[in-house]
Amino acid sequence: MQQPLSEEKVFKDPVHNYIHVQDTVIWRLINTKEFQRLRRIRQLGTTYLTFHGAEHSRFSHSLGVYEITRRIISQFERSGYKDWFPEERLVALCAALLHDLGHGPFSHSIEEAFQMNHEDWTCRIILENTGITEILQEVEEDFPQKVASVIRKKYEHDIVVNLVSSPLDADRMDYLLRDAYYTGVNYGTIDIDRILRVLRPYHGRVVVKESGMHAIEDYLMSRYQMYWQVYFHPVTRSSEIILRQVFRRAKQLFHDGYSFRFMVEPLTDLFCGEVNVQQYLQLDEALVQAAFMQWTSEQDELLSDLCSRFIHRKLYKYVEMESLDMETIDDIRSSFASAGLHPEYDLEIDFPTDLPYDVFRPEEGFHGKQILLLDRQERLREISEVSDIVRSISGIHRGRYHLYYPQDKLEKALPMLPESIKELFDLR
Amino acid sequence: MQQPLSEEKVFKDPVHNYIHVQDTVIWRLINTKEFQRLRRIRQLGTTYLTFHGAEHSRFSHSLGVYEITRRIISQFERSGYKDWFPEERLVALCAALLHDLGHGPFSHSIEEAFQMNHEDWTCRIILENTGITEILQEVEEDFPQKVASVIRKKYEHDIVVNLVSSPLDADRMDYLLRDAYYTGVNYGTIDIDRILRVLRPYHGRVVVKESGMHAIEDYLMSRYQMYWQVYFHPVTRSSEIILRQVFRRAKQLFHDGYSFRFMVEPLTDLFCGEVNVQQYLQLDEALVQAAFMQWTSEQDELLSDLCSRFIHRKLYKYVEMESLDMETIDDIRSSFASAGLHPEYDLEIDFPTDLPYDVFRPEEGFHGKQILLLDRQERLREISEVSDIVRSISGIHRGRYHLYYPQDKLEKALPMLPESIKELFDLR
Amino acid sequence: MQQPLSEEKVFKDPVHNYIHVQDTVIWRLINTKEFQRLRRIRQLGTTYLTFHGAEHSRFSHSLGVYEITRRIISQFERSGYKDWFPEERLVALCAALLHDLGHGPFSHSIEEAFQMNHEDWTCRIILENTGITEILQEVEEDFPQKVASVIRKKYEHDIVVNLVSSPLDADRMDYLLRDAYYTGVNYGTIDIDRILRVLRPYHGRVVVKESGMHAIEDYLMSRYQMYWQVYFHPVTRSSEIILRQVFRRAKQLFHDGYSFRFMVEPLTDLFCGEVNVQQYLQLDEALVQAAFMQWTSEQDELLSDLCSRFIHRKLYKYVEMESLDMETIDDIRSSFASAGLHPEYDLEIDFPTDLPYDVFRPEEGFHGKQILLLDRQERLREISEVSDIVRSISGIHRGRYHLYYPQDKLEKALPMLPESIKELFDLR
Amino acid sequence: MQQPLSEEKVFKDPVHNYIHVQDTVIWRLINTKEFQRLRRIRQLGTTYLTFHGAEHSRFSHSLGVYEITRRIISQFERSGYKDWFPEERLVALCAALLHDLGHGPFSHSIEEAFQMNHEDWTCRIILENTGITEILQEVEEDFPQKVASVIRKKYEHDIVVNLVSSPLDADRMDYLLRDAYYTGVNYGTIDIDRILRVLRPYHGRVVVKESGMHAIEDYLMSRYQMYWQVYFHPVTRSSEIILRQVFRRAKQLFHDGYSFRFMVEPLTDLFCGEVNVQQYLQLDEALVQAAFMQWTSEQDELLSDLCSRFIHRKLYKYVEMESLDMETIDDIRSSFASAGLHPEYDLEIDFPTDLPYDVFRPEEGFHGKQILLLDRQERLREISEVSDIVRSISGIHRGRYHLYYPQDKLEKALPMLPESIKELFDLR
Repeated sequence: MQQPLSEEKVFKDPVHNYIHVQDTVIWRLINTKEFQRLRRIRQLGTTYLTFHGAEHSRFSHSLGVYEITRRIISQFERSGYKDWFPEERLVALCAALLHDLGHGPFSHSIEEAFQMNHEDWTCRIILENTGITEILQEVEEDFPQKVASVIRKKYEHDIVVNLVSSPLDADRMDYLLRDAYYTGVNYGTIDIDRILRVLRPYHGRVVVKESGMHAIEDYLMSRYQMYWQVYFHPVTRSSEIILRQVFRRAKQLFHDGYSFRFMVEPLTDLFCGEVNVQQYLQLDEALVQAAFMQWTSEQDELLSDLCSRFIHRKLYKYVEMESLDMETIDDIRSSFASAGLHPEYDLEIDFPTDLPYDVFRPEEGFHGKQILLLDRQERLREISEVSDIVRSISGIHRGRYHLYYPQDKLEKALPMLPESIKELFDLR
Repeated sequence: MQQPLSEEKVFKDPVHNYIHVQDTVIWRLINTKEFQRLRRIRQLGTTYLTFHGAEHSRFSHSLGVYEITRRIISQFERSGYKDWFPEERLVALCAALLHDLGHGPFSHSIEEAFQMNHEDWTCRIILENTGITEILQEVEEDFPQKVASVIRKKYEHDIVVNLVSSPLDADRMDYLLRDAYYTGVNYGTIDIDRILRVLRPYHGRVVVKESGMHAIEDYLMSRYQMYWQVYFHPVTRSSEIILRQVFRRAKQLFHDGYSFRFMVEPLTDLFCGEVNVQQYLQLDEALVQAAFMQWTSEQDELLSDLCSRFIHRKLYKYVEMESLDMETIDDIRSSFASAGLHPEYDLEIDFPTDLPYDVFRPEEGFHGKQILLLDRQERLREISEVSDIVRSISGIHRGRYHLYYPQDKLEKALPMLPESIKELFDLR
Repeated sequence: MQQPLSEEKVFKDPVHNYIHVQDTVIWRLINTKEFQRLRRIRQLGTTYLTFHGAEHSRFSHSLGVYEITRRIISQFERSGYKDWFPEERLVALCAALLHDLGHGPFSHSIEEAFQMNHEDWTCRIILENTGITEILQEVEEDFPQKVASVIRKKYEHDIVVNLVSSPLDADRMDYLLRDAYYTGVNYGTIDIDRILRVLRPYHGRVVVKESGMHAIEDYLMSRYQMYWQVYFHPVTRSSEIILRQVFRRAKQLFHDGYSFRFMVEPLTDLFCGEVNVQQYLQLDEALVQAAFMQWTSEQDELLSDLCSRFIHRKLYKYVEMESLDMETIDDIRSSFASAGLHPEYDLEIDFPTDLPYDVFRPEEGFHGKQILLLDRQERLREISEVSDIVRSISGIHRGRYHLYYPQDKLEKALPMLPESIKELFDLR
Repeated sequence: MQQPLSEEKVFKDPVHNYIHVQDTVIWRLINTKEFQRLRRIRQLGTTYLTFHGAEHSRFSHSLGVYEITRRIISQFERSGYKDWFPEERLVALCAALLHDLGHGPFSHSIEEAFQMNHEDWTCRIILENTGITEILQEVEEDFPQKVASVIRKKYEHDIVVNLVSSPLDADRMDYLLRDAYYTGVNYGTIDIDRILRVLRPYHGRVVVKESGMHAIEDYLMSRYQMYWQVYFHPVTRSSEIILRQVFRRAKQLFHDGYSFRFMVEPLTDLFCGEVNVQQYLQLDEALVQAAFMQWTSEQDELLSDLCSRFIHRKLYKYVEMESLDMETIDDIRSSFASAGLHPEYDLEIDFPTDLPYDVFRPEEGFHGKQILLLDRQERLREISEVSDIVRSISGIHRGRYHLYYPQDKLEKALPMLPESIKELFDLR
């Protein structure tokens, strides 16, 4: 299983041109049903409702992360760097390929709605006797454990963890390029060839040659732009809010003993909080969308309305506010209630920086979180010490409150809403 | 409703950069649930199982066809050509936007399996009192009929039909560009700006200025290449065959009174052949994939096996044959039967040129099927009279037989298969 | 002359795809010998010695600036903005096309060596009875004066000046895109379609709609990166230093009465400081390179050595220093003199920020120097008030000293150089 | 000298992204003045007068050919093909890098005007004690001879010759990509990664794996298109005709003892037909352009007119004719003479297929001229046997006569020209 394929295989990829597969184990992993499932999970969740081109899957992204890792390692080996351990190649490639294996349908929303964690699921799928486990065990008895520990960032060799998760890892590089390609937004176009050229292994971790500083600056700026242009786009946030509301409502109805016109097993298990690995593997976005479509004709009006909004893209509108206090929120909620609106479903508050926003922050400690530059005198310096640009943007902490609401419902309730609310939501 | 939007709206598109919407009616059509449904129908059916990037929807493509049509008309109007009728602009744009509205999930396969026709469905959705009908009627009482007749190629002004369906129409231009972009295959990259520049209205149809001949040659070659590289790719054909077998088997079981573990309404209607417009609009690829996933655990072994193959991408292998006679096929089928294999499900014969392959063939008569060049002396000539390249490729009729089969099953049946069969299928 | 061409003409351009010419006057200006001369002046001077792809001319760039200006105005007119004056279209297009007309060969260096100014020359060529003057006068008697005053930033309508010279003008947009394209450096890839969409005329100037803030941030970052990656590249600086030394030496020899093996008229006039417009128009990079090639065999060793260095690309090396005081420089110069090196020609000090570096600096006053955002409430705000990114980089003032020197000569003089000097220049 | 560089060096290249230099000998060759001279010779001669972007030099192209050769060999070595000889790597790389070394300024025209051959000059510069010779000799005493014999297609190992000159060589691949990039014409965009993947060494030559057939079809079509769109563009032909006329006139004047206002040594030697290698190396396009500029004020009217036409781009117009007989030509020439026009300079006849047009022609014999496909059964077949497309275009022999003439002169002579001539040249 550690042997190479008799002939290299390739996948045509719009981002990397070709994905090169050279190892039998990688080829077999790709062909498992566990990995093929990622074709049915979109990389960017509901973003396709904002950027219609962003219909790409985690399958594509996972192949891309694998390919970038392969290229980095290949460059390390061609350059003959002594700080790289060739025997770690396979574990790094497997971890890169499998790192997103546990993502559920519309991952961020489902995790929030059901308190799940995709990293845990990735490790369970690797370890709990699936087709993946079997293939990995053929490499070495404890190989599944090794791969899982890389994903958990606990592997003994930091350098392997660095490749798959660090401020400059293969994951981020692929998603910036890929998300830019599929959305059509230019900001994510980083010079990956240049970045790969300036990475090198050094004393147990991946560092950047000083000559690559500008390429890294450009990479960090691209990330910043992609966050604000794409990942935090308010229309996407609106669709995620509706999605979470569907899950919340359906779960509540389920626990209230409501009889669904349409219900299937992985969903019941999800509502019970008792999903096993086999059921989890049946959870995909096709199922979620099919269920939501069926639920558009449920008797429960709130559920059917929310599902219609999601499926037919009748999203919530939003207003932006620079600041927001508890009192104002309470006011709005009680006005809503008085006007017959639902105080919780008809108003959602969102503050994007609450999300795991990871433009590089140097103050968060050394280990694995920093980008280090190596100069010609073999000194290591954290990049914001050297780059004015990085130092300038490191401190930026940005964010605004957005209030999301169903405009049509508010318009119907108009006569019963106080003036202050009408003004706030720009009604009439 | 004929009035323009107060401010132009845009969609970011990776292929055309921006899609520009200037008319209220177009904006409202895009926001109907009928049009939004196209987000859940892939542009290239099962091609994503061969080219993992090809996950784009008919929604994206439809916007693209609209945009190209808009640009052609805008160029006609800017150039002040007298042969264009400005009052036809809106009907052309609506037909361009809506031309694929009736596509079902995995369109080619479902049409073949259930004898349906997406053009009929497009017209029904336009005409039968849907949200689409309502919006179109606000333009003019008989506007839905006008749009439908463009799609049926029966509209009184050929030039409008030309824009939406002809050998050089906005549909083909968008799909070549878009499919090339999403698969990552370079062959479809046509010089659309150049093509748009050389189109002009002339005596009731769209013709090409002679100076654009090379751009058209290049366009036809790109199409030829895309057909053989992408659209007829044998791995895609394999997945389509399995898909059709699933439909065939499920339909048969349904009519035999089999009790499915999982069944929902639009599917039962489909099996009965009695789908109405409202049910049809609920048919999408999410539903098909969700049903197939559920059916992987059906009791009927054939159905569950076929569904597993499709969902987990365990496709049929194929052998290629230059020629094939009826006798050989009968031989194989009877050998298969004797060895316990299914003579119909375990062997499928495919001959790609049987498909509606439309590299331009001049002999097929004048009307709407030819590309005409207009020279400086205002003479019209069919392009293959002028272009050596087009003349050369016009006669090419290519195709090979492919036999598709489940390799694992054949391998199990190996001892019972005659040598000739083993050799043919390259077994051991 | 104000009438449009009977048929639009196009130039194929790698950056903008097509350059569209619609006006007779533009077409005729392009075909003058004064404008064609720009084909023999490189856009980036000696940068092709660092980035071999950067061989593009000011001719290409000038067409590009014209095209961007045309697109901006066309968008203004299509959008029906009342703050734009359609009668200013032609003067803006002519100024855009001609703004670089007066650049000499290897412009920055020759200007420095001979105290010339390309803007003055541009105005002289426009005004002093050339083919350009004649064509412009056919539009209107004082049209040459109008065009020249736009170039001098003294035109009565600021908005026209804004288009051609401001922090967000057509000039900068074209050169960022074009220089990135030809060098192959990705950093300059700005989203020009997006930027054009967000510009609008407002109260006599060009402002940016607030929704375009991120596109402007990205544009300013691209500029910052291009400055440090390309425009200030130390290898390019080295070649410019040698170029200036050639000019300096040749001028000195000329004034000393030295008899050159090769000398032609525009050069003698240049050395005398008495170039007239007709002679100036004969000055191009072909002449400079041909003269330098001939001078590689001049008797004056310094001149022939410098010319060989330039023509055969044997450039000076450099060392970088964080700070530098006068005393150190004096020390080096006197050590050089003692060792038989030339204290002036063999040591050049360069500090790139001394150049007209124009990353946007808000403190430099309002008029024409600021980028203003227009929000929905029609408030104007300078961009660094709104954008964290722009505020962060506005204060950055960066630069390091570079000492340039002929390594081969220093190596020959090695035994006579003190240790401190050897160490400084990293010799042995 | 055979040793690798201590650290790989790169050149940023817009076409290949990076050019990788790994060998000391390659690095030193690039830095010779003989190779640097190629910066002053444009890759496409006068094509920049038609496509303004095409200002790239043979320096860039030569680096590109080197890089493609390096990648092909690297792929051969990674794949472990036994039919490749690793010891031939360096000779192949040097031949690839140096193959265009002998090109003169505006190569095609100067060769025609002075009966020179760039291949001969390449070999002379390699062999006749230049800086190039010296560096190559450090590899091996007879290494210059080896490199020259590859360029002369006489090297003992055909496979090395194949890489540098064959229907599918590194030279053609680079120029298609590069010329497409710099002109902005899309037709030359070939899938080089795909082509490189399907090449393999086999029994002493480079062949193509059958799976790559479509990529090769596309490559041949791109070549066909580039020939007709770019290389044979009538405007470019017009400028080449004028260029040859300048050379012809100046040579004649020189032999007639005319006293030039401006004349320098490499040109006098050229006119005498006695250029030595050192003089040849001083011939570049800067010199030619500088001389032409000076000659615009020569007393000889014909010479000064021709030089003005070239320098200021006042080119000849042309009419196209499907056929042309000797008699017609004689008629025109005598009418021209009667009207006071110059019967030779004022009429030039051009028939583009007379040029070395090399769309692949299988009938021209086996050796090195054919593209061979290798199928899975290890059978070799010439591509047109297998590909319908290639077979279709192989027979195409296309071309039309073009008559070039100075329109302004003909207009002046109008009253003296017979009606038939006026009609032919579309005058009035």
